[in-house]
Amino acid sequence: MNRPLLTQAARPLTFEIDAVNERGEIVPTAIAGEHPLTIYVDKQEIVTLMTLGAAPEALTLGYLRNQRLIGKLSDIVSVQVDWEVNAVAVVTRHGQGIAAERLEKRTVTTGCGQGTIFGDLMAEIDNIHLPATAMLAEVTLYGLLDAVRHHESIYKQAGAVHGCALAKGAEILMFVEDVGRHNAVDAIAGKMWLDELDGGDKIFYTTGRLTSEMVIKTAQMGIPFLVSRSGLTQMGWEIASKLGMTMIGRAQGKHYLLFSGAERFTR
Amino acid sequence: MNRPLLTQAARPLTFEIDAVNERGEIVPTAIAGEHPLTIYVDKQEIVTLMTLGAAPEALTLGYLRNQRLIGKLSDIVSVQVDWEVNAVAVVTRHGQGIAAERLEKRTVTTGCGQGTIFGDLMAEIDNIHLPATAMLAEVTLYGLLDAVRHHESIYKQAGAVHGCALAKGAEILMFVEDVGRHNAVDAIAGKMWLDELDGGDKIFYTTGRLTSEMVIKTAQMGIPFLVSRSGLTQMGWEIASKLGMTMIGRAQGKHYLLFSGAERFTR
Repeated sequence: MNRPLLTQAARPLTFEIDAVNERGEIVPTAIAGEHPLTIYVDKQEIVTLMTLGAAPEALTLGYLRNQRLIGKLSDIVSVQVDWEVNAVAVVTRHGQGIAAERLEKRTVTTGCGQGTIFGDLMAEIDNIHLPATAMLAEVTLYGLLDAVRHHESIYKQAGAVHGCALAKGAEILMFVEDVGRHNAVDAIAGKMWLDELDGGDKIFYTTGRLTSEMVIKTAQMGIPFLVSRSGLTQMGWEIASKLGMTMIGRAQGKHYLLFSGAERFTR
Repeated sequence: MNRPLLTQAARPLTFEIDAVNERGEIVPTAIAGEHPLTIYVDKQEIVTLMTLGAAPEALTLGYLRNQRLIGKLSDIVSVQVDWEVNAVAVVTRHGQGIAAERLEKRTVTTGCGQGTIFGDLMAEIDNIHLPATAMLAEVTLYGLLDAVRHHESIYKQAGAVHGCALAKGAEILMFVEDVGRHNAVDAIAGKMWLDELDGGDKIFYTTGRLTSEMVIKTAQMGIPFLVSRSGLTQMGWEIASKLGMTMIGRAQGKHYLLFSGAERFTR
């Protein structure tokens, strides 16, 4: 009975505008939605996120979780999105909002290139232990890449979004797209929180690059496998190597590059 | 004589690691650098940016400028990057650091999907007037796309970075890549500040998506033309339309889509 009361306020995800191409022709073009969503906790303003609006309740929960602003799902009574005012009202059980010192310490997403408490995050990494016995077989990876390719997506229609998926084996459990990579990851974290899912036997797939932030967030969710269509950065690689995370990039069709954690991967 | 004293501390931009491909072969793979860089102003800690490290001094200046933390270039005595401690020390003329109220008001980059003072940014937009008479010809656009294609880039070697260029006609004046889109834009803003360049007759090119943040930053630099290889979001389109900015997406080779500001574009 501890699940908060949630609205189901997804926005229309694409809009059509008329563009003009190089032949002077009018081309009806689908574009991705982008909306400000201001989070209030017990009427205290916390942050404004720019979002596609596909999963605003899960995004709000994941943001509050990943920024360590709220520790337990059972502390939350309700999450109510109102697009009339581009706001989401979160009500907590104690009704006291977020302590000022917690707000000061929030991480401003290293992956967007601008973080505030990078040192704290790196210290946290040292305390994460990914399950040593979890294994991923190449055939499962191929199955997952196939599932992702066949998944309906805003990206196929309109581009300009990043997608993330949580998978168990080759099966996609959740798939979230957003205009910001952070938001897509946060929304998955929010859904995992709601459904009380453990990351230890899961695979995290992202269309985006494997930067330090993506590796850190995957580790925080306790997920030992990180797969991307894209490449990686030096720090993403260093952190994944340190964690023993199995990281696979440039993964599409029957091609991939295994970057770290080979001991968990079987061909 | 008002130009600050700068280090020239670019980092090596790519590193090589050994990955393993689907045939079990070891593939030496170039990956993009990613380093924390903590900005101190008069010894006061401001923010940690995750950066490729290609233009750390310009990035620091552009960050301080775009976040409205320092108003005039002549207020800055020196910008000294020291990669031994992943830090950049900025010394101001008054030596007082940044006022607490300014720090509170800083924007945390709407484009990464997480901003704090979105309302203020939107209000600022109303006060921006892009030059009405600036024109862009299709042949110039094609020339610029050609110049970008031939430009040496980290992206071609290692992927995982975004690139931005400032152009006058088809000539690239500056080209910056970084792991975060925000950083690449901020570094261009920093270079424009240093060189006292006006944006009114320039074109801004980005490999990234045309989100609200990208449109707002281009407008803040006073640039009437925004060109991207990628698509756009609804809010990016709405703001560009409101500003009368000429925005062109999906631009590659001899193809493009003109999204807004057709009155400034000639075929």
